[in-house]
Amino acid sequence: MIDPQRYPRLSRISVPAELRAFPEEELPAIADELRAYLIEQVAQSGGHFGAGLGVIELTVALHWLYETPVDRLVWDVGHQTYPHKILTGRRDAIRTVKQKDGVAPFPKREESEYDTFGVGHSSTSISAALGMAIALQRAGDDRKVVAVIGDGAITGGMAFEALAHGGGMGDEPGGVEPNLLVILNDNQMSISENVGGVTRMLGRLSGSRTLNALREGGKKLLGDKHGAPARFVKRWEEQWKGMFVPSTFFEELGFHYTGPIDGHDLPALLGALKTLKHLKGPQLLHIITTKGKGYELAEGDQIGYHAVSPFDPSQGMVSKPGAKKPTYTDVFGDWLCDMAAADPQLLAITPAMREGSGLVRYSREYPERYFDVAIAEQHAVTLAAGMACEGAKPVVAIYSTFLQRGYDQLVHDVAIQNLDVLFAIDRGGVVGPDGATHAGNLDLSYLRCVPNMVVMAPADEDECRTMLSTGFRYAGPAAVRYPRGTGPGVALRPGLDTLPIGKAEVRRRGGPVALLAFGAMVAAAEQAGVALGLTVVNMRFVKPLDRALVLQLARDHEGFVTIEDNVVAGGAGSGVAELLAAEGIVLPILHLGLPDEFQHHASREQLLAEAGLDAAGIQRAVDARWPGLGARPATGTA
Amino acid sequence: MIDPQRYPRLSRISVPAELRAFPEEELPAIADELRAYLIEQVAQSGGHFGAGLGVIELTVALHWLYETPVDRLVWDVGHQTYPHKILTGRRDAIRTVKQKDGVAPFPKREESEYDTFGVGHSSTSISAALGMAIALQRAGDDRKVVAVIGDGAITGGMAFEALAHGGGMGDEPGGVEPNLLVILNDNQMSISENVGGVTRMLGRLSGSRTLNALREGGKKLLGDKHGAPARFVKRWEEQWKGMFVPSTFFEELGFHYTGPIDGHDLPALLGALKTLKHLKGPQLLHIITTKGKGYELAEGDQIGYHAVSPFDPSQGMVSKPGAKKPTYTDVFGDWLCDMAAADPQLLAITPAMREGSGLVRYSREYPERYFDVAIAEQHAVTLAAGMACEGAKPVVAIYSTFLQRGYDQLVHDVAIQNLDVLFAIDRGGVVGPDGATHAGNLDLSYLRCVPNMVVMAPADEDECRTMLSTGFRYAGPAAVRYPRGTGPGVALRPGLDTLPIGKAEVRRRGGPVALLAFGAMVAAAEQAGVALGLTVVNMRFVKPLDRALVLQLARDHEGFVTIEDNVVAGGAGSGVAELLAAEGIVLPILHLGLPDEFQHHASREQLLAEAGLDAAGIQRAVDARWPGLGARPATGTA
Repeated sequence: MIDPQRYPRLSRISVPAELRAFPEEELPAIADELRAYLIEQVAQSGGHFGAGLGVIELTVALHWLYETPVDRLVWDVGHQTYPHKILTGRRDAIRTVKQKDGVAPFPKREESEYDTFGVGHSSTSISAALGMAIALQRAGDDRKVVAVIGDGAITGGMAFEALAHGGGMGDEPGGVEPNLLVILNDNQMSISENVGGVTRMLGRLSGSRTLNALREGGKKLLGDKHGAPARFVKRWEEQWKGMFVPSTFFEELGFHYTGPIDGHDLPALLGALKTLKHLKGPQLLHIITTKGKGYELAEGDQIGYHAVSPFDPSQGMVSKPGAKKPTYTDVFGDWLCDMAAADPQLLAITPAMREGSGLVRYSREYPERYFDVAIAEQHAVTLAAGMACEGAKPVVAIYSTFLQRGYDQLVHDVAIQNLDVLFAIDRGGVVGPDGATHAGNLDLSYLRCVPNMVVMAPADEDECRTMLSTGFRYAGPAAVRYPRGTGPGVALRPGLDTLPIGKAEVRRRGGPVALLAFGAMVAAAEQAGVALGLTVVNMRFVKPLDRALVLQLARDHEGFVTIEDNVVAGGAGSGVAELLAAEGIVLPILHLGLPDEFQHHASREQLLAEAGLDAAGIQRAVDARWPGLGARPATGTA
Repeated sequence: MIDPQRYPRLSRISVPAELRAFPEEELPAIADELRAYLIEQVAQSGGHFGAGLGVIELTVALHWLYETPVDRLVWDVGHQTYPHKILTGRRDAIRTVKQKDGVAPFPKREESEYDTFGVGHSSTSISAALGMAIALQRAGDDRKVVAVIGDGAITGGMAFEALAHGGGMGDEPGGVEPNLLVILNDNQMSISENVGGVTRMLGRLSGSRTLNALREGGKKLLGDKHGAPARFVKRWEEQWKGMFVPSTFFEELGFHYTGPIDGHDLPALLGALKTLKHLKGPQLLHIITTKGKGYELAEGDQIGYHAVSPFDPSQGMVSKPGAKKPTYTDVFGDWLCDMAAADPQLLAITPAMREGSGLVRYSREYPERYFDVAIAEQHAVTLAAGMACEGAKPVVAIYSTFLQRGYDQLVHDVAIQNLDVLFAIDRGGVVGPDGATHAGNLDLSYLRCVPNMVVMAPADEDECRTMLSTGFRYAGPAAVRYPRGTGPGVALRPGLDTLPIGKAEVRRRGGPVALLAFGAMVAAAEQAGVALGLTVVNMRFVKPLDRALVLQLARDHEGFVTIEDNVVAGGAGSGVAELLAAEGIVLPILHLGLPDEFQHHASREQLLAEAGLDAAGIQRAVDARWPGLGARPATGTA
């Protein structure tokens, strides 16, 4: 429970109505308590950190001024919503964030009526809020709608689409302007530093940062804010602000621009919001904040403190000593550097995920062959297609769930043209604590149906490396899809060996049933196979399948079990069944995979176990279909 | 063959090198011939019309000035490339456009080395050209790269992503500016009129259109263009242009802006291009053109003449008299109006496809509930999600192939949150003459793997209407996926009846094999089923399947044939196989569907026949798997 001594105000606020009972003067003190509480809690629980600290004042101001949840507050990405969750009924539960049955790390409609729109991916808030604003206006309902979007998220094309649509609605014949406030939370960061033309555009703010500093200095110097000198400064400021701010960009699209405002200056923020609350039409408020604000170590290392493991707030994060088992992300990062050294045609692309995708070392060693395109998955994929047209060998490093954003580009620009692009797909399959929005449960299905694609899933770290080389050397579109975190711990061979396309590996021969396992499921399948005396195959290729081997195994076995960490619907196992059907082979087959539902957040291991995708679960499922197999005399050998 | 009397210059140009042999003075005459030839040819063959007429001068200028195909010319969307094709080796073949084995209606890498990037969807050209420019620069190759993009296409988010990336590259530490020219072809049209904030932004050009008219008038008035008065006008023009042009928008993103230029004034165009050709860094040239330029009827009806059937150029297009069989698009359009009348919560969204999606009447009758969001599929889907959050009932009308652009939004914003959005998916399955980029061959696979989705495919027009009502009334995400063109011609009932979710319809009982047909394949399956005496089921639901019926049929039959106009990989038939496997049922199954390859352009009927998806093909495939079925005594009745 929250300590009322340390948090005299926050301990009395469990929902925004209680916050709104406080007078305006106490809001800065409430913000201070909220910040201290967030630091205390996340230091214990781990989770997203810096983004929340950057919006403490904004969160307090919005919930105090607006009638949430009647008024609609839409967050973008959502990793900044821990303060929002603390103020909206989840103050005590926030320590359970990311845990199974605990608070979700992102807004989630089924968790709270204050979470108006579930999120996790970037750049959706303006579209969603515009949809709400339109629906409410059409129904004659005058509730307010506010979207909060970061300067990183606004680089995503769909945010631009939404701004252009919302800004232009009033221009159409009979068109009605939407009543919508977009708050641009400008901290010059995505998870990494922002890049690209939008940053350049907002970069004119370096001027306005100076302006803000000047204004702050002026206030102190001039004392009474109603005195004549202060009024002069204010007028002077209005006069010159246009020189420094990126208003034109938004105004040209049809949004009325206000700002920039210091997003940590609660009175200034409230002042602006009070005015904007009563203005009609599409409004944009530009606020400047600091990621990690109020926790010095986080302000100084905004990337490192984006998300944290539990730590001692007085010490900060301490990196653990000793040799760590490399993650698949590490394996990819090292492979990329090695292949770049071997092949000068390699170019690597990331949509704003340098750290998450393991590109830190590569970006330092090969800066001229490293392309962070900002949060722009569509562009990332077609950029790679263009590069491939000129003989370069692009590698797109992307999370499974974010590749959904580039799906049309993968089909239309890469696969139809059979271009030589390698997709290094991280976070394939079960991801875990980040919840359904970050799950990579669908990729084998949505990739397998695309002609020309080669799709691989590694059983271990070394095979991941070999598959990356294989996909890179293959002259066409290829994907290597690997899971979050660590694998079985197989030692990595240093070379750049490749595998034959479409060849599987028989791990053990047994019978009468064959376990056909894909990627991360091979280890568990092997355990189950040993226990039951069955044949176990590391399938390696989701597409093309090892046709000859599958047909041979079909002759030798009474049944197949396919095992994958993808939904069963249209997944790798269905590919095996399709192959048998095409050959006219009739064989009992059992598909093990993820369920046809969106999984809640929990640890990766918990979710896999729930889905029956650990060794015990596989054994149970095989037993249920072929009872007594383990008791039969073993028919094969390891 | 081209008539050298009527086309004295064009008849001597089969490739750009021959164009480049002409002196600059003759280019306007060549442009005139090219325009006349295009009108003559497309009037005979049908095809895309207005867009090509709008870029005649641009096409001539680019191929004359640049060393194509060594220099790289990248078109966006591609429906404006008939003049390009005529100048690049396909002059005589252009009459075969869209026909099987004829010229493709869009650029296609395998068709010509002048087609540097295949296209069909919008907004890809800047990304692709930037990729090429980067790859060439990194290789020390100084070939030029030019992208041509329309003002409609530039509303697509990925174009913005590409502009922002390209414009910002030079700002990064150690960053290298790309050498890239983007030509913004501004004709104020998509296929329909453009809408939204980008149009608003470019709309400042109404001022500059006045300016251009003034300049034109001035030229005539002032005579000699080198005289002092003309020089004065020129200086005055430079001075004031900044007041009218949208340069700021592009300049803020980091592109150097030139324009606007009258895109039909060849000398002016060449003058600008000659300068830009030698400038480094990201350049944007803004040209103003008229869609349909030079063919009066097309200038006057830019939407009607976007694409045409064969017509007499002296008469223009004549609408055929008599009752026409309604297309599925018509069925949708009428249903939408009827449902809108019945339910005031209905809101309809289109990403710039009012005509193609059948929304013309609805947009007139319900303008306040009609939302054309411009070419912005991502935004369209999430906008619908936001609307659904507030109790509205959004209908997203979209082509199958373009929904690939909104795939992440469908998963992340609609399906995860189980929101009440209806997707009316036109052009599902085989599309035909527009080729692989427009094919809807993948949708059942990429939709079926998404939890919470209900996916329907109608067997005929009336069922399409009923399914639309069903999806609309279903409180969750639903998709009705129907084909291009007309169906079997079933009479439409006027009501708004619904179907029970997940229930199939047995069309005839027979045996020993059951044909399980989806959507547009039901008619052909029924023919084959009658011929062979088999059971035929109209499956109706791809997801959820009619589990009870499938299990019952499995008990009564020796085998199943699934039939769908989707790739077999992960398609509807695989869903049937998965269901059987999950139940431990072992039954011979044959999946008929589209092949695992991108189909070339041809008529829809040709492509279906090639894939064996007509009645004869189905019969052949069943015969091959179960020989002699037709000869067995019939076991069932119709």
